[in-house]
Amino acid sequence: MVINKVAILGVGLIGSSLARALRRRGVCEKISGFGNDENQLEKALTLGVIDKFTLDSAEAVEGADVVVLATPLCAMDSLFSGIKDALKADAVITDVGSSKVSVIRSARHYLSPEQLGNFVPGHPVAGTEKSGVEASFAELFEDHLVILTPLPETQEEAKKCISQIWESVGATVTSMEIQHHDEVLAATSHLPHMLAYALVDCLASMQERDEIFKYAAGGFTDFTRIASSNPQMWNDVCISNRENLSKMLDQFSSRLEEIKSAIGDGDSDALLQIFTRAKSSRDEFTEKRSSSINPGK
Amino acid sequence: MVINKVAILGVGLIGSSLARALRRRGVCEKISGFGNDENQLEKALTLGVIDKFTLDSAEAVEGADVVVLATPLCAMDSLFSGIKDALKADAVITDVGSSKVSVIRSARHYLSPEQLGNFVPGHPVAGTEKSGVEASFAELFEDHLVILTPLPETQEEAKKCISQIWESVGATVTSMEIQHHDEVLAATSHLPHMLAYALVDCLASMQERDEIFKYAAGGFTDFTRIASSNPQMWNDVCISNRENLSKMLDQFSSRLEEIKSAIGDGDSDALLQIFTRAKSSRDEFTEKRSSSINPGK
Repeated sequence: MVINKVAILGVGLIGSSLARALRRRGVCEKISGFGNDENQLEKALTLGVIDKFTLDSAEAVEGADVVVLATPLCAMDSLFSGIKDALKADAVITDVGSSKVSVIRSARHYLSPEQLGNFVPGHPVAGTEKSGVEASFAELFEDHLVILTPLPETQEEAKKCISQIWESVGATVTSMEIQHHDEVLAATSHLPHMLAYALVDCLASMQERDEIFKYAAGGFTDFTRIASSNPQMWNDVCISNRENLSKMLDQFSSRLEEIKSAIGDGDSDALLQIFTRAKSSRDEFTEKRSSSINPGK
Repeated sequence: MVINKVAILGVGLIGSSLARALRRRGVCEKISGFGNDENQLEKALTLGVIDKFTLDSAEAVEGADVVVLATPLCAMDSLFSGIKDALKADAVITDVGSSKVSVIRSARHYLSPEQLGNFVPGHPVAGTEKSGVEASFAELFEDHLVILTPLPETQEEAKKCISQIWESVGATVTSMEIQHHDEVLAATSHLPHMLAYALVDCLASMQERDEIFKYAAGGFTDFTRIASSNPQMWNDVCISNRENLSKMLDQFSSRLEEIKSAIGDGDSDALLQIFTRAKSSRDEFTEKRSSSINPGK
């Protein structure tokens, strides 16, 4: 598959990494970039991530065969509104948002029925705690999952095109029902990010903060890595997926309350039960993960 | 420095890794092991981690110049009680417990004033989520901190001996006031472990658990790594350091409540403020850490 022109709207970590990967694999001829930060776009151009850029989303999608929406979620409304009249009739559109219901709501509001047929909502479950074009790299999606959440009206051809794009950059593609995606990701990704942000902010506000960070062990470094993630992006995820995330926060808090009570009561039976159950789930998860995602390793 | 005989009481991850490191660096002639799991002790012997073992703690410390207490914290009472009459008069004693107040309470209860003068409480801030002798490795302490929390009566000579041992295996040694150690570690290590256990246990109890673990991203893997840690060890830490840990759990919960309210209210200003503050603290921490712990890297 060779695509003539791809438009990457948002040259952050995900958009730029996809651009790099597509280029390296020879999947497309030309890549145009759009964003609201001219500095980032200039860097993307200098680094060879994109061939040209514009600050006008409509101009970016002109003549594009594939359009990738890769901005934080709260910009989706203005993106769809900006590009809808400039899209080629058969342009295939996808996005990389971490929650899907809100993106799809925007798409339904702005796109025509024909355009909706060519819209394939997607979510590459990949990233690092870094952001921006300079943190991007072509291998980001290798051995990672990409979840597509097609609409009832999404055409088979469009879905096939987006699947092939992700597979060409080394990802494994799977599909999920829209609302279900947002529930599952609230649990596996959005909740952990909230815990990491809350933990770091909690410790940073303590009197002994310098000492606390000085004595933090390796576990802490791993555990809080995701607290270095892009605040704007995570604000948008929280706002977009607030119902599911609020539910998960409540569930987590009750579980933490149980642990807190057991510690307060010196109840070793309860603590051992919780820790043993968690350890066995986590060990099982790690084992399954290593055998399913990297079947060759 | 060459020590004639070291007794390692508890051949788990920390005790066995120290034994391996001491041997590799040629720091000691003979290493005796003690534990309550004969299977682990047999493995330690077969792997060459120790030279001999016994199920009797008094026998293990006979003739030992250095005695390292490396069992979970709740076994300390019975260890001190078991070894006190068998210790060589000038034996230097140390431990590796993650919280210090309770270990020191045990030591004060069982050891003579002379023995207390040779006791150097210590905490290597190192580990992995794995446990047992088979997970041990000689490099575990390289570029890691070891915190000593000497008693007022701890002799300079004893402190120097234990410092040299840790430095000889690649660690950086520092000292801290006893109660302060437990407060700081409750924040940087004990609290994160509780969050990881609570998160994994919370997700494992959901109806969609298989799917949830299937779609978990790399961030989740890192974030929950410490939930695979030894449940018995962590039960003991919770019980030993319950007051400080309970205080930290309360502080964390209030911070999480703030995030939860902001999400519920759709308050982006508050979310962005918290996330930005956390990110900048975490970035600052990572930078300082990489320049202070690994000055040459």
